[in-house]
Amino acid sequence: MENTRILLEQNEIPTHWYNIVADLKTPPAPPLGPDGQPATPEQMGVIFPGAILEQEMSDQRWIPIPQEVREIYRLWRPAPLVRAVRLEQALGTTAKIYYKYEGVSPAGSHKPNSAVPQAFYNKQAGIKRLTTETGAGQWGSSISFAGQMFGLPVRVYMVKVSYDQKPYRRLMMQTWGAEVFASPSELTQTGRAALAENPDNQGSLGLAISEAVEEAASRPDTNYTLGSVLNHVLLHQTIVGLEAKKQFDKIGEYPDVVIGPCGGGSSFGGIAFPFLADKAAGDKRAENLRCLAVEPTSCPTLTKGAYAYDFGDASGFTPLMKMYTLGHDFMPPGIHAGGLRYHGASPLVSQVVHEGLVEPVAVSQLATFEAGVQFARAEGIIPAPESCHAIRAAIDEALKAKVTGEPKVILFNLTGHGHFDMSSYERFFSGKLEDYDYPAEAVARSLEHLPKVG
Amino acid sequence: MENTRILLEQNEIPTHWYNIVADLKTPPAPPLGPDGQPATPEQMGVIFPGAILEQEMSDQRWIPIPQEVREIYRLWRPAPLVRAVRLEQALGTTAKIYYKYEGVSPAGSHKPNSAVPQAFYNKQAGIKRLTTETGAGQWGSSISFAGQMFGLPVRVYMVKVSYDQKPYRRLMMQTWGAEVFASPSELTQTGRAALAENPDNQGSLGLAISEAVEEAASRPDTNYTLGSVLNHVLLHQTIVGLEAKKQFDKIGEYPDVVIGPCGGGSSFGGIAFPFLADKAAGDKRAENLRCLAVEPTSCPTLTKGAYAYDFGDASGFTPLMKMYTLGHDFMPPGIHAGGLRYHGASPLVSQVVHEGLVEPVAVSQLATFEAGVQFARAEGIIPAPESCHAIRAAIDEALKAKVTGEPKVILFNLTGHGHFDMSSYERFFSGKLEDYDYPAEAVARSLEHLPKVG
Repeated sequence: MENTRILLEQNEIPTHWYNIVADLKTPPAPPLGPDGQPATPEQMGVIFPGAILEQEMSDQRWIPIPQEVREIYRLWRPAPLVRAVRLEQALGTTAKIYYKYEGVSPAGSHKPNSAVPQAFYNKQAGIKRLTTETGAGQWGSSISFAGQMFGLPVRVYMVKVSYDQKPYRRLMMQTWGAEVFASPSELTQTGRAALAENPDNQGSLGLAISEAVEEAASRPDTNYTLGSVLNHVLLHQTIVGLEAKKQFDKIGEYPDVVIGPCGGGSSFGGIAFPFLADKAAGDKRAENLRCLAVEPTSCPTLTKGAYAYDFGDASGFTPLMKMYTLGHDFMPPGIHAGGLRYHGASPLVSQVVHEGLVEPVAVSQLATFEAGVQFARAEGIIPAPESCHAIRAAIDEALKAKVTGEPKVILFNLTGHGHFDMSSYERFFSGKLEDYDYPAEAVARSLEHLPKVG
Repeated sequence: MENTRILLEQNEIPTHWYNIVADLKTPPAPPLGPDGQPATPEQMGVIFPGAILEQEMSDQRWIPIPQEVREIYRLWRPAPLVRAVRLEQALGTTAKIYYKYEGVSPAGSHKPNSAVPQAFYNKQAGIKRLTTETGAGQWGSSISFAGQMFGLPVRVYMVKVSYDQKPYRRLMMQTWGAEVFASPSELTQTGRAALAENPDNQGSLGLAISEAVEEAASRPDTNYTLGSVLNHVLLHQTIVGLEAKKQFDKIGEYPDVVIGPCGGGSSFGGIAFPFLADKAAGDKRAENLRCLAVEPTSCPTLTKGAYAYDFGDASGFTPLMKMYTLGHDFMPPGIHAGGLRYHGASPLVSQVVHEGLVEPVAVSQLATFEAGVQFARAEGIIPAPESCHAIRAAIDEALKAKVTGEPKVILFNLTGHGHFDMSSYERFFSGKLEDYDYPAEAVARSLEHLPKVG
């Protein structure tokens, strides 16, 4: 029987994360403070510990993973690299399709890869509590889990509509000991103001971010955590691609195409950056490597946005970041891949797209669920809606290879399972989901509100 | 870094299941037909294919696993054996605690271990459709998945109250292509009669079984599948213990105590029987081995039931089986480990309990959830309520070892994750769950209705 799951032992968990900053053609544009000047470490130190700030600004290629973090990683890592033989057969393709399965983590996605080190560094810095926001609930549950691992209490501001509609995600966080509040809440000035204006406010991710940041900024013993976009988050996620490379080495293969879903950018960067490292190092195998960052047509940041300085949040609280953006007041429609509904994209992913190292791809909602169902029926695992974007692109690449007869090797990041997203599948099966291409005119309008810089 | 996950490669998936019948002191008492005579293969052949019937009646010790079944098993097997180091530390015990994690299957539990071969043998026999019933949804989703793997349509009769309250389990089955009907349904005579009597009938497991069996018995191209109790199901589940033994061999350990939750009996038998095989073979390591079958105090089949012939279902449709039973009209209260609410227990598990090879243990509901939450906070994984019963007993054993200072090796079957059971955790956290010891008088009353035999 042919081996279709490539496993690593726990002592093969990588000892270092890979920092792509060391290999970029030009240094990343710095985040800018309210005065238009580069944000200082002091400004950001209010909500992040020193070790995280150092990583955020580092240009070192390899950054050691603390032993304490590896000891938590081993609860589920190394994650398997799996050859999707039954999917290949269903497609009749000449391609080999591999997926890196991150749904094996306790929280069910790749998010704990960064939640664990974030909790660790904060604990180490003497911080007594973490705050964060969560929409769909993936990040909130991951930081709740990670906080529990280091005995660090966690407060999650959960967008009210999700709080009410996704009680199971909330319960998951509570099982790991976190306090979960519907946002807007009475706990912060931002929340109280929003409720005073409208007691029925259903919340938004922007508002929840503001509440979590406000609490962290106002208490010296409390820090804020973020699950995507920032450099240190993408750094932590490179564990995904680094493990995949070791696994490919074991079987003497190398991918021709590497695919990740792309919202804030951490799942794409996590799988793709370590392969881009090979390209930067002149590795022959990576010479013709293609990397696809897959986003929804309803939130087409990389394919239709501008590459410009913009706020990371809706209300203009964060520093300005140079990135692909649809404008910080862009309101994405209520599509069912909550994790991909972000107006911007990680500055690092934006830069490699801008430099032409990565191809952005936009896929429509129905086609992603069709791909997800096809995958579940072939391979068993029911994927998260975010992951379905990568599956769609992987299937499309495999079908192209079928036409040309090429023996392509395709790798994608199966970022999580869909156990807490079955209501999205329900909407798909019952015909309630629709395709939605965000219109170019609307993008143009929200881009008019980009902040003026310099 | 010490290795805490003991992995096997796919080619180490066992090639044979273990049949404990070969090692019993006396041959199992045969199932009896309506006439009080041993049920004939012809009678049972109406709803089962020949290969399954052969396994049901076999006394061969080793039964080969078809290659086609191993090829599906490898989608998630071998399942990891994990040392719960963080739980040990939290308990301060001198014991080593290992768990075999069956939640890695696509359906999230051990149930596909039998669903896959059942689908395979039916497909091979030319059967065109499978029927089954489901309550909590674990078995229904497993057979839906397995049917899809062999292109065999599946119809699931889902107890109406679960159908309404557990839409995500239903959607999981639909994602794998199954048809799911609320039971009672209009599709069977049984269902129509129940609805005629009471249009608001919320259904019961017994009624759903009757509907699924009726459809299978009335169509020659349709067969019925059952997820526990029967010999062939326990046979298939021995893959769990057989893998665990290989994994212990790798690290040169052997358990002193083997623990499984026990409802119908397949999760307990699956992990324990292969270790009992060592005991039967005179293996020195197994000389003092203890096996604990853990049931809820609210459904105390093994600890308070009678060892007698009884029906497998509520309405007296099935053959009579010799087993521990609380009486077939026993109505368990609505506890939140749906998989353990069965009035009887597998005849094979019953026999090894009766022969004194296995210790039955009953644990109360609140104590099991406390154990489950403690486990989740130490090890990450949120366990299914059924699995919490085994965790409770494992923790209790570890605490005993702490007192005596013994370096006990404890193994338990972590049969599944709780991703679809978070509403039970909600009831636990909100104080809505209560302990309930089924009263001895009530057991005595329902035992008065045991069928007369001979």
